[in-house]
Amino acid sequence: MDNDILRRGKPTCHVEFGEAMALLVGDALQSLAFQTLSMRMPGIGAERQLAMIHLLALASGSHGMAGGQALDMAAVGQQPTVNELEFIHIHKTGALIRSSILLGAHCGNASAEELEQLGHYANRAGLLFQIVDDILDAECNTATLGKTAGKDAAQNKPTYASLLGKVGADSLVADLRGEAHETLAPFDSRALRLHELTDFIVDRNF
Amino acid sequence: MDNDILRRGKPTCHVEFGEAMALLVGDALQSLAFQTLSMRMPGIGAERQLAMIHLLALASGSHGMAGGQALDMAAVGQQPTVNELEFIHIHKTGALIRSSILLGAHCGNASAEELEQLGHYANRAGLLFQIVDDILDAECNTATLGKTAGKDAAQNKPTYASLLGKVGADSLVADLRGEAHETLAPFDSRALRLHELTDFIVDRNF
Repeated sequence: MDNDILRRGKPTCHVEFGEAMALLVGDALQSLAFQTLSMRMPGIGAERQLAMIHLLALASGSHGMAGGQALDMAAVGQQPTVNELEFIHIHKTGALIRSSILLGAHCGNASAEELEQLGHYANRAGLLFQIVDDILDAECNTATLGKTAGKDAAQNKPTYASLLGKVGADSLVADLRGEAHETLAPFDSRALRLHELTDFIVDRNF
Repeated sequence: MDNDILRRGKPTCHVEFGEAMALLVGDALQSLAFQTLSMRMPGIGAERQLAMIHLLALASGSHGMAGGQALDMAAVGQQPTVNELEFIHIHKTGALIRSSILLGAHCGNASAEELEQLGHYANRAGLLFQIVDDILDAECNTATLGKTAGKDAAQNKPTYASLLGKVGADSLVADLRGEAHETLAPFDSRALRLHELTDFIVDRNF
């Protein structure tokens, strides 16, 4: 959703091909996700596939990413509470992170109980991602981050870093990281990649 | 996709709420379609529901509406042949008209043979819609049409009216209308609404 992300020196789609074409590509990619999820998958029941599609649709729309982005736009120039900021991010970035994790679990034919437990993990992973993103934006230089650093502050956009301060944000990251690892405990070595993902989200510097 | 459609005096979404919010609403509505189609429907098998979702996804994405719109943008200022123009419209507007008709047939648990026959009908209905749209754009005044008439010509946009002339376009409409009614013949009175839809597409003046 950012206008100025530059990765490996390549301009974003809308810079290279124009806004209209970039929007069409976005529409086409959203369709492609549902096209892919609705192909019959060996070893996964049709009922479960429908549940997976429903999960992704809810996470993408007004109850997920699109709704969270709308709230985020409305919050520019405001001073939301930490709870309000959390509500925005649970929807804006958290919902798709959560659905990515749960879709993977569905592919392993996870039980309802396992899905619920992974949902708790995913909520923490999503928040961790956002808080670390805010801290990096406030701290890093533009070259390391791959996007314009300090942009949030320049746009007067509320962030965890601005609401909690550096110390408070770091402390919240430490707490959430511990909780995230704990929620994965019942899965033993099957959750190895998710433990690694948790550490990657926190330790990345870009 | 038009920027200047005015219906009943109400401004379009992007005029009323800004482009960013209008784009988010579009994203959310696309998700909502898949959210709705992935809810379990009484009397329809899960396998068929997956086929319905796949149909809509294909019709919306790069092989359907989004791809057709991209081709349409690329054709502005060009002089495509009638076949090229048909290819654009089969994707840009035809694909979603076709999927609407086939999704309805799926809800009635139509057979593969019935779906194929209705696909032939739907292709004609989609083209009829577009040709009549072109004729109306060239002919009507803005008040009747509900959007800015003559816009296609002003944008140097290829249309059936400009490629075939008024007489040629009218003749093509008459042929396609007859073919459309014929393809519905095997369905007897069950296709009453589709016969009516065909006449409505041709006889409308807005």
